[in-house]
Parts: sequence; C-alpha cells; structure tokens
Amino acid sequence: MFRNTMPRYEILSEDAMDTLDRGWRRIVSEIGVEFILPEAVELFKAAGCKTQDAIVFLDPDFVLEQVAKAPREFELQARNPERSAHIGGQNMVFSGVYGPPFVRAGDERREATMADFERFVMLSQAFPQLDSPGGTICEPNDRPLDSRHLDMVFALQTLSDKPYMGSVTSGPNAADTIAMSEILFGGREAIERSPASISLINVNSPLRFDDRMLAAMFEYNRANQAVIITPFLLMGAMSPVTVPATLVQQMAEALAGIALAQLVRPGCPVVFGSFLSNTDLQSGSPSFGTPESAIGLLCTGQIARRFGLPWRSGGGLTSSQTVDAQAAYEALMTMLPTFLAGANYVMHAAGWLESGLVSCYEKFIVDIEILRMLQEEFTPLEIDEASLAYGAHQEVGQGGHFLGAEHTLERFRTCFYRPLLSSTENFERWKSKGSRDATERAGEIWRKTVEEYEPPALDPAVREQLKEYVDRRRIELGD
Amino acid sequence: MFRNTMPRYEILSEDAMDTLDRGWRRIVSEIGVEFILPEAVELFKAAGCKTQDAIVFLDPDFVLEQVAKAPREFELQARNPERSAHIGGQNMVFSGVYGPPFVRAGDERREATMADFERFVMLSQAFPQLDSPGGTICEPNDRPLDSRHLDMVFALQTLSDKPYMGSVTSGPNAADTIAMSEILFGGREAIERSPASISLINVNSPLRFDDRMLAAMFEYNRANQAVIITPFLLMGAMSPVTVPATLVQQMAEALAGIALAQLVRPGCPVVFGSFLSNTDLQSGSPSFGTPESAIGLLCTGQIARRFGLPWRSGGGLTSSQTVDAQAAYEALMTMLPTFLAGANYVMHAAGWLESGLVSCYEKFIVDIEILRMLQEEFTPLEIDEASLAYGAHQEVGQGGHFLGAEHTLERFRTCFYRPLLSSTENFERWKSKGSRDATERAGEIWRKTVEEYEPPALDPAVREQLKEYVDRRRIELGD
Repeated sequence: MFRNTMPRYEILSEDAMDTLDRGWRRIVSEIGVEFILPEAVELFKAAGCKTQDAIVFLDPDFVLEQVAKAPREFELQARNPERSAHIGGQNMVFSGVYGPPFVRAGDERREATMADFERFVMLSQAFPQLDSPGGTICEPNDRPLDSRHLDMVFALQTLSDKPYMGSVTSGPNAADTIAMSEILFGGREAIERSPASISLINVNSPLRFDDRMLAAMFEYNRANQAVIITPFLLMGAMSPVTVPATLVQQMAEALAGIALAQLVRPGCPVVFGSFLSNTDLQSGSPSFGTPESAIGLLCTGQIARRFGLPWRSGGGLTSSQTVDAQAAYEALMTMLPTFLAGANYVMHAAGWLESGLVSCYEKFIVDIEILRMLQEEFTPLEIDEASLAYGAHQEVGQGGHFLGAEHTLERFRTCFYRPLLSSTENFERWKSKGSRDATERAGEIWRKTVEEYEPPALDPAVREQLKEYVDRRRIELGD
Repeated sequence: MFRNTMPRYEILSEDAMDTLDRGWRRIVSEIGVEFILPEAVELFKAAGCKTQDAIVFLDPDFVLEQVAKAPREFELQARNPERSAHIGGQNMVFSGVYGPPFVRAGDERREATMADFERFVMLSQAFPQLDSPGGTICEPNDRPLDSRHLDMVFALQTLSDKPYMGSVTSGPNAADTIAMSEILFGGREAIERSPASISLINVNSPLRFDDRMLAAMFEYNRANQAVIITPFLLMGAMSPVTVPATLVQQMAEALAGIALAQLVRPGCPVVFGSFLSNTDLQSGSPSFGTPESAIGLLCTGQIARRFGLPWRSGGGLTSSQTVDAQAAYEALMTMLPTFLAGANYVMHAAGWLESGLVSCYEKFIVDIEILRMLQEEFTPLEIDEASLAYGAHQEVGQGGHFLGAEHTLERFRTCFYRPLLSSTENFERWKSKGSRDATERAGEIWRKTVEEYEPPALDPAVREQLKEYVDRRRIELGD
C-alpha cells in the first residue's frame, strides 16, 4: 500500500474555507436534503431534526456532531492479511474502474461479459499498484440482472485476495455481499471487528438520496462495513456551473449522508466521496480530465481533512473514446492532482475509458504505468552526504561521463524508475520491431498478464460454501 | 503572458537545502569548472580566481557575489510591444520545441526543412499559449549549414512578432543575431536597454563550457541580450545517478556560468537553466517524462528562487516515437510539475517528440491543449458569495437538474474550459465522424491553422534591411 508522505498541495485560504463552510450550512439547514427511504427520515426525526415529507432540514452543528463519531482511519480487511488496506491518514488505496456496461480491447468495443469481469479481477490481482480490484469493474451483461451481483462478489472473493467493493443495487444485494463476506472471513464478528468490504453509495445529486442506495447503505452500516458516500456531480447538470457552488453542494450531500450513517451505527466506517467534473454544455456530454475537476480534487482533499474524514476521488478519468493521447493526458490530469491532494481511496484508478462507459484493457495498462510513475514521484528524496555522490564527481571530473563510474555501476539496475509500458527505443529499433505505439504494447502486456495469472490460494471448503450460497440465492432470486 | 499566482509546490526542507548548498560549494571550489575559452579563464583570473589550464576553482562566495548582480526579473522585448515578455517573478513564458533535426507529420518522419521551420513559426504565432516560437524549432537541413542561422532568425523576426531565441552555434552567429535585432528594433541602444533576444547556452556537462557556446555567450552578454545557462544533465551519463548529486552539479554549473556572464557585463540578464532527466541504463537512451525529471523540476524551482534568479525548465518532454498515450502522459508528467514549480521560461513547450529528435506537428497541438488546460487549472478560484450560486440551489432544490437553471443559462458559454482538441462526443457520433483519435484531429487543427495564418505587419523598409543583411552575410559566409 502506498503512503504519500509528500506535502499536500492546498489552494484554499482560510477565508475561502469559511465561505465554503457558510455555504454548506445554509444548504442543509434552509434547502434541506431528501432521503427517499422512510427509515432514514425516521432516524433524523428521532434525533430531533425538522422534516417535511422526505426532506430533512439539518442543523449543521448536529451534522458535525454525527460526523465526529466516524473513525478518522480504519482497516479494510483482505482475506490475505498482507493485502489489508488502511484507509485514511497518508495512505492512498487504489482500486479499478467501476460501473461500465461496455469493454474495449484493441479496436473492439462491445458489451461486457462475466469473462471480462473475471479477466479484470485477474489483472487487478497481478499488479501491486492496485490495492483492490474494485467492485463492478464492468457489468457482466451475459448474467441475469437479479443475481449477477453474486457472480461478481464470488469472482472478487476467489480470483483475488485483495479487499473488494460490495453490491449497492439494493438492500438484499448488500445483504448478500455481507453474508458472503461472513463466509469468507469466518463469521459476523470477524467482519464487524473491522470492515471486510467497502461500498459506493452515490448521492442522486442534487440533494437527494434514493431508496435503493440508502437501503444498501443501511445494511452495510449495521454490519460495520465501510461505505463511500459520494455526491455525483457533473457541474451544469447535477450542480451549478461554478466550482465553489459545487464544493458546497458536495459538502452538504456527503456530510448529510455521513451523519445518517452515524445515526444508523455510531462509529461505523465512512469515506467522504468526491466525483466532481463538468458537463460539456455545448454537447450535454460529461467531460472528464478537465481543469475544473483537477481544481475540485485539490479543494476536496483540503475540505475532507478539515472534517477529519478519509476521502475518495476519481482516478484516471477521460472522455476519450479510444486509448489515444487525449485518454492519457486527461487521465494524468486527474491522477496527478489526486496525489497532490492525497486522496485516501482512489476509484477508477485503472481501466476507465469513454466517460466511464467502457472498461478498457489497454487503458488499464496505461493507468498502471501512470500509477507506477506517480508512486515513484511521490516518494520523498533522500538528501544526505551519500546521495551527493561526491566521489563520482571526483572520479569523472570535467567533460567525462558517468556511465562507467563506480557509483553508477553499483546502482545502475535500480537507480531509476523502470517503465512497464513506456519505450525509450531509438526510432530505427522501434520501427524494426513493428512501430507499435503504447496502446499496442499495452495490448501485449495485459494478454501476457492474464495468461500468467495464478489464483491466490483459498481453502476449498470456504470456496465450496461460497458457491453453495451463490447457487442457493440464485434459485431464490429466480435466475 | 501567463502569471502563475497559485502556490509553489516545494518539497525541499531547510536541511536538504543546506546539504545541497554544501554540495555545489565543494564542487566549484575543489573540483572546479572548465572553460574552454581563454578569454573566460582570463576574466576569472583577473577577478582573483585560482585556475589551472582551463579549469577554474571558484570561491563559492565570489560566485554568489557575481550572481547577485544579475537582475531578478527583466523584460524581453518583442517587436510588437504587446507581446513583450516579462521574465521572472510569477510569470511563465512558453516557447516552442528547440533543436530537432527531424520532423513528424502524421505517419511521415523525415529530415526537417526550412519550410517546416517556417510552418512552426506560423503555428507559434497563431496560438496565444506560446509567448515565443523559440529558436531552432527544427534544423532546416535544406539550407547550408554556415548560413542557416540567418534564415532562421529572419523567419522568426518576420513571420512572428513575438520574442525569439538567438543563434548560439558560434560567436559570429550570435553577432549576426544581435545585428539583425538591431535592425528590427532600431539600433544598438534599443536592444541594450532591454534584451530583444534570449539564447540558450548549454553546458557541456559535466563541469565544462565549450568554446563555441562561450563565444556566443560573450557576444550576448556584451550586448545585454538574455542568456539561459543550462546544465545538460541526463543522469547516469552527464551526472551521477542520484537526483541530489545532479541538483548539486546543476547548481555548480549554472551558477559558475552566471558568474562568468556577470564578469563579462555586470547586471546582464541571465536565466538559471535546467534540463534534467535520466538515461535508460538498460538501453543507454535518454528517458523523458520520468518521475526523476518531475522531482528535479520541483527542486530546481525552489533552488533558483533561493538565488533570486529567474529559471528555465523543459516542457512537454517525451521519449515516445509517435503521438500516442505515452507521448501525452510523459509530456504532462513534465509540464504539470513545471507549473507546480513555477518555471519562468519554459522551452520545448510545444512540439517535442522522440527524445527531442523530432519536431512533431500533431504533438504541437497536443501540447497546446495541455498548456491551455494547465493555464486554466493554475488560475486561482474566486470563492465568494456570488460564486456559491445559492440562488441556483434554491431554484433547483432536490433531484432536479441545473441545465436549465437561470444561473447556468447566463454562464453556459464561458463557465467551463473549452477544449481545442479533446472530444467528449458520444461513441456513435464519434464513430460516424470517422473514429478519429486525438492525433488525427490534431493533424486537422495544425493544417487549418497554417492555412489561416496571417503574417503580422512589418515595415517593408525594415524587412528589406533584414533581407539585405542576410543576403550579404550569406555571401560572406560562402553559401
């Protein structure tokens, strides 16, 4: 797991923070937040909040009291304890793309299948830069809608030994995730001690939480499983067209959701989520990798730290339809600020393409390369007498070269970042090897990685129990 | 011209700065710096420095005394005063790629010609993100070697009204640049008042300045023209394999050169140059866009500010052979830290490909897009009551959308960054328009820009004088 011990790049002044603070307080207290689940409204009512139908008017100080009950950091268990992830503090946890209905491999774009899902889990397992395969890495469209969450959780649990994300499509689906986690980790107590899953609860922005997401969240909160409460904000559509207004809305929504989680179970693990970009107001399409989203990231980190909460960001986001220069610069345009801002949980860290409609194999490899570079870049320099290598300067003097210096020969294998994907070959050599661009080379890398994949060991009895659970529930669900 | 008023991202502690400080002092005083031009050694001798053949052993405090004579900021004149550039402080000045013998357009890679050079000047003139076309944007290989510097300066002076870089291939060639600047700006006094050219003086690292570069530098210093003194450091070849040792060498070389410039003419304008990346020690090729170079950039900004000097960095550097994902992420991996570190003069800001061997038209457009995005990203947010857009939240409430909100309708044309190159089109539309990736679209953009180019007005008499100078000198040079 990567710890980012470099300084945070913070751009909000105290004055700006105060203005934003006034903003979210006014929204939650005067406009209110809608919770389309009667149980949620009842919980707020019981705590003394003013409500009107599904709208809850929140006293900001009450919200902060609840938020203060959330842990600042927590351990997210993996079935292989060495792969457990610590969420919060200086830690940055990276997980794969989440949600796309389509996949892309080379020039082929098609509906995603369960086989794709499994391959992406394998790839996530293979690269140490990813701490989690994520959850819905792609939609397995060849599996029945009502029971595919079981197939996904089963694949995440068996093909990987890293932490995983749970189903949020309904309360019962969340309960399935929890039941399967209990099987894998050895009972309810084992997963309540410290969460064994982390799940994405999106806000139906602006200012509305829908019933299915809330029902799922309640299940997870009760079982002490982690949730990431994420306002879903494409400026111009789900929020106003200014970054400050959007930050204020993001605070209002995330904090209201976190307060609710703490009413369900005080002290349950939560993450302040951010998914903030803008709409292209010419086409109406979402835009990713924009300057606005980079600014949003920098601000969000500073805001979440103010509330003492771990926080989640996007990852290698892009609107590009293919793995081209745009895909790469947009991905890095979100990922580098993610490091500068010190996001604790980074979703969509590998594989995102086409505004999140596509999980792309080649993009996955491009993103892994970007993560490898940034993890190196955000590792502090050691500056001491030894690192000054004065002996090398004495040896080489003026006008010579360091290729054969003793200092170089002792270190040449490990002294520099070694790329996975990038090529430094000279033109003639590159041409003689087929003039393959980065995307073509990425195609080779992911195929080879899948071929060489080895499943992590799993007790056959546990695997059998999981399978029985899936089979039984599939029948109960009518598939 | 872009002013970067965002915070600088500084990663060196006071302790680290002290260690680096000891490092360069030891190198200049104990190992010394070689100056392969007798006049240079004489100047140092006359100032009381210890020398041994061409090697000068420098008292670090003497070096700093000279460095202190350099201006902290200066004005770089353009023939169109509106395009004059202020070098130093919060200003960031961007100039095109410099030096490549080859060009690439689409899939064609070939030797560069004068027509290419001229097209790149036109492109630089067309995009406001570039403050200068640069100097040797590509080598016009179809022009005789001895006089092509005249053709280049003439093209820079006539096809653009932005500041330009001068020839550094020899003392006489520098003198030609100065003479042509005198013609364009109306005499020696006009260009001595404030420099009308800026020129790149590379160090023959490690620790050596060659005679041709020094002879050119002397001409520029005497005429009060700006020089950028740049250690040329590919770690593992021209410097040791650690970043700290390389930073120390960079300080030693740049400061020694700047001290010399101040001996030639106290107070003459200089820039602390940085060109720092690493060698791929497996292949022996240079690597660009690496984590090491990003770290080097962040440190160099902090160091140059310590000495009160404006500083220069690379730009959109990459080792990639083509305009693919690698080219884009490597370019941004150097350009974003360049903004974080607040470089004052950014060379190679557009068009660099293939480790600097190729000036590429499509990459030029990709880089312009990156510059546009970063200039937007590094513009401070205004956070005030108006920007909170509370009225929009009141209007839309819960679960609606902001597309038709009054606040959106009033701002939709200008509220977000509008891309030049990036596409947010949905897949079907993108496919129906030919599935063109960013590089193909960039090809259209640069061709259209060249077609629509209009030369800036220039007094025909001045133009004629310049032409006469070029024709006369060409004959004198035997071409």
